[in-house]
Amino acid sequence: MFKVNETKIDDKNFYLNGQTYENNRMKVCVGDQTIGGNTLTMIAGPCAIESEEQINSIAVSVKKAGAKFLRGGAYKPRTSPYSFQGLQKDGLIMIKKAADSVGLKVVSEVTSEKQLDFAAKYCDMFQIGAKNMQNFELLKAVGRYKIPVLLKRSFGAKIDEWLAAAEYIIAQGNRNIVLCERGIRTFETSTRNTLDISAIPVIREKSPLPIIIDPSHASGKSKYVHPLSLAAIAAGADGLIIEVHNNPKAALCDSEQQITPDDYSCLFNDVKKIANVVGRNI
Amino acid sequence: MFKVNETKIDDKNFYLNGQTYENNRMKVCVGDQTIGGNTLTMIAGPCAIESEEQINSIAVSVKKAGAKFLRGGAYKPRTSPYSFQGLQKDGLIMIKKAADSVGLKVVSEVTSEKQLDFAAKYCDMFQIGAKNMQNFELLKAVGRYKIPVLLKRSFGAKIDEWLAAAEYIIAQGNRNIVLCERGIRTFETSTRNTLDISAIPVIREKSPLPIIIDPSHASGKSKYVHPLSLAAIAAGADGLIIEVHNNPKAALCDSEQQITPDDYSCLFNDVKKIANVVGRNI
Amino acid sequence: MFKVNETKIDDKNFYLNGQTYENNRMKVCVGDQTIGGNTLTMIAGPCAIESEEQINSIAVSVKKAGAKFLRGGAYKPRTSPYSFQGLQKDGLIMIKKAADSVGLKVVSEVTSEKQLDFAAKYCDMFQIGAKNMQNFELLKAVGRYKIPVLLKRSFGAKIDEWLAAAEYIIAQGNRNIVLCERGIRTFETSTRNTLDISAIPVIREKSPLPIIIDPSHASGKSKYVHPLSLAAIAAGADGLIIEVHNNPKAALCDSEQQITPDDYSCLFNDVKKIANVVGRNI
Amino acid sequence: MFKVNETKIDDKNFYLNGQTYENNRMKVCVGDQTIGGNTLTMIAGPCAIESEEQINSIAVSVKKAGAKFLRGGAYKPRTSPYSFQGLQKDGLIMIKKAADSVGLKVVSEVTSEKQLDFAAKYCDMFQIGAKNMQNFELLKAVGRYKIPVLLKRSFGAKIDEWLAAAEYIIAQGNRNIVLCERGIRTFETSTRNTLDISAIPVIREKSPLPIIIDPSHASGKSKYVHPLSLAAIAAGADGLIIEVHNNPKAALCDSEQQITPDDYSCLFNDVKKIANVVGRNI
Repeated sequence: MFKVNETKIDDKNFYLNGQTYENNRMKVCVGDQTIGGNTLTMIAGPCAIESEEQINSIAVSVKKAGAKFLRGGAYKPRTSPYSFQGLQKDGLIMIKKAADSVGLKVVSEVTSEKQLDFAAKYCDMFQIGAKNMQNFELLKAVGRYKIPVLLKRSFGAKIDEWLAAAEYIIAQGNRNIVLCERGIRTFETSTRNTLDISAIPVIREKSPLPIIIDPSHASGKSKYVHPLSLAAIAAGADGLIIEVHNNPKAALCDSEQQITPDDYSCLFNDVKKIANVVGRNI
Repeated sequence: MFKVNETKIDDKNFYLNGQTYENNRMKVCVGDQTIGGNTLTMIAGPCAIESEEQINSIAVSVKKAGAKFLRGGAYKPRTSPYSFQGLQKDGLIMIKKAADSVGLKVVSEVTSEKQLDFAAKYCDMFQIGAKNMQNFELLKAVGRYKIPVLLKRSFGAKIDEWLAAAEYIIAQGNRNIVLCERGIRTFETSTRNTLDISAIPVIREKSPLPIIIDPSHASGKSKYVHPLSLAAIAAGADGLIIEVHNNPKAALCDSEQQITPDDYSCLFNDVKKIANVVGRNI
Repeated sequence: MFKVNETKIDDKNFYLNGQTYENNRMKVCVGDQTIGGNTLTMIAGPCAIESEEQINSIAVSVKKAGAKFLRGGAYKPRTSPYSFQGLQKDGLIMIKKAADSVGLKVVSEVTSEKQLDFAAKYCDMFQIGAKNMQNFELLKAVGRYKIPVLLKRSFGAKIDEWLAAAEYIIAQGNRNIVLCERGIRTFETSTRNTLDISAIPVIREKSPLPIIIDPSHASGKSKYVHPLSLAAIAAGADGLIIEVHNNPKAALCDSEQQITPDDYSCLFNDVKKIANVVGRNI
Repeated sequence: MFKVNETKIDDKNFYLNGQTYENNRMKVCVGDQTIGGNTLTMIAGPCAIESEEQINSIAVSVKKAGAKFLRGGAYKPRTSPYSFQGLQKDGLIMIKKAADSVGLKVVSEVTSEKQLDFAAKYCDMFQIGAKNMQNFELLKAVGRYKIPVLLKRSFGAKIDEWLAAAEYIIAQGNRNIVLCERGIRTFETSTRNTLDISAIPVIREKSPLPIIIDPSHASGKSKYVHPLSLAAIAAGADGLIIEVHNNPKAALCDSEQQITPDDYSCLFNDVKKIANVVGRNI
């Protein structure tokens, strides 16, 4: 058993379990893609997989814009049990097919240990959602797979609790973890949550794990996704996960926060400019 | 499928699924005990079951003080994977034996669907902890059992989300749910969390489900448990769940917030006085 | 210059500036009334003074119910400059007359040093509102008067900052301060603010100053005022300040949270029962 | 009397009081400097003015780095009355002299109406601090001067309340207001406050007033100032106010969050690169 934060040699390097991480940064490989190095990771796709047509159309669009990963929820942990719960297994089959046809990697949320064997065949990366960040039995279960994990921060969790949640996965032997900040609960109501942009430098100081930002859930409003994306990259994030839908108004969930493929394409180009300035590729 | 809040006939009565709840209040039966009626429910016991001696000693003490339920964690969802994780199955066997020997009901936390078959033999009531309040797969699973559920509020959840979590259990056919407020996350640091005392009248307005208060986790400090307990009963809570340990300083977890059996006995007597005044028995 | 928390001899007594406070509790005298001793202090009245008829009518009602202090805003620090700003000097004249005619003490908010000379003639107690808790120039100014001060906690302030604000008054030579908790900002939206009930035992541990509770501003809803009032007294508060209006629906401000004189009378009686149980008079 | 948000003709233009603001953006002139247009505003200087030597040295450094405004507190509204309260009038004289000698504008906080006549001679811009954001009497008073105002957001205020506070100044005839976000209170403790980066696009949507960011107070830690500054400019902020001290460790206040002149120079250069990419000059 090892701890990700166990040893820090100096200001520049983490040492852990026989390995040194230069500049304190770790890289997570997802097939032929690498998250956390010099290249930014761009993940995009709908809140939920709704149909073959929908996911295929979005896959083509976000690939064309430059994304390397396709997101899309099959198991949707909705606040209410009476809301749309996702296409589940069928959804996973659809997203994998759509992603393969254009050469994207699949990231999709899992919410129960029982889904993992099936999901492992269709996902290149498991997502643990904010609501399950402290579902430790699920964390331990994904820790026993070799598949990389995108670990979202709970909207009610301190950064130290988030890193401790990552340790539950690491302690099982899987250190392929990418952290994702997606907004915390505060008293401000202009945005759905408050993007904790400071989490980027805090994580870069405390942990070698890559960190990406989800401006869609953080703000809950499509019009704020663009400026928050640029801010995240300027502050040192290793990538972005953004909700893109071919027809946001008709989306089965989170219709307020998804952007169109055209807007995503525009955002991608502006992110590229910021990336160049801060010494990152895309 | 039915919803607990589906119909409210007038200010005084909820109507749901063919049943009317007088004064908007529902009763949950746990064996020969009733939660939510005129009689307050007093639950007490250690944060974690540590040994036979420990749980037996505490069971005798809290029974003597007047408690009707024994709490004690066997599966401990600790923030860090390197902290004590509980005695698990052995713990459940110990607490059941200790409770039976003095005539108490057992409430213990479950954190995974896989624990339920075993735990169902030793628990009179399942507890869903704050960290798992939106672990919907677990909620659905306990919903399929007949065992009553103590559903703690997440420290990051709004009241409406908490009630929506209860619906996940109800939608599976189990409406034997008792809500438990245990403090929310705020900027104040004098207490571990901030007890949302207003949740009591809010719940009594919005839902027929009984609500109890956990002043131990809310405050995180044993010295504040007594006044917060009295406040909760005065505000209309249906009971209290309190951490009691025979030797708090040596406790394997939450040593700061557990009180001694003597303090519990004193608290119980003062709660009784408030109960009389607000028209409740104990 | 002295500090209220400067010396604590033991668990039971504060010693400061040549004086010992038994059981850590200080008494503040307002004419022939005493706040902070065994007797609870009941303050009631409208959010704003609106007319002679209004304030007279309410003064008679709350006096009859048992209150000893009349509240009513003359200088209203409204969030928007385009909202009703209070009757100012005229309002102070009206409230003093109304209070005198039935034998009540006057508590009214001041928002500027320039108001103090005039207000000092009409107020038995100055109120510093939540928005001005860290308006240190105002605090210093009221510190130079002999008039007792009701210091409300800012909705954004930690308890330690609130006590530090009190020190600004004390440092000028006026230690006649009564603290008032009126709800803090959190993510919960069922109530206007979140009543921090734990502030009562925290203050009783950290400071000898009396503490009263304002359930009207804390909850922002008249229906929650009653249960929160009982909770406050059960938890050890030294009194309550409650918004009472003869016609809440027509009130010029805070119409949602003011209660009627009849409701106040009922509340007063229930508070009395709790007071008896916790060893307080009223 | 007029309101800054009174009329919005379309998505692109605000119309108010006979004037149209292109792209919803207003410009505030401070002598020969303009805040809010295409050019970013860089304000720098110590938390408090401590001596002639200190403020002169810092003035020279920040001017050399490229700043156009010198900040420095003369009236310090410290949380405790026993902390250093600033050099007051002497401080203002010192900062004006230091600024004049190198050609910088002066921004300094005022905390009482009584300071304004004197301060008006030495300040090019008044700062209203977070603690006084809802000190409406002070807001009205600065509204009666012609001097531009830097209005900091209270750490406990919603964005709508902040804009309403600005209206108090505007309603007196002074619309030369620059908003400054400096972090809000949340449960996260890794940073002193949580920078609400989303406030930038929210303000740009709701108000024509310029908005700048204070990453020093938001994070409370000098090591996070650099990345947060870049994020702010990328998100569309109109400038930055940063605490710079010639010897941060020996600073009389906020020693943890002030950066050295060398670090500021480096930050300035990186800000310039981001500015170029987002179409702003510096």
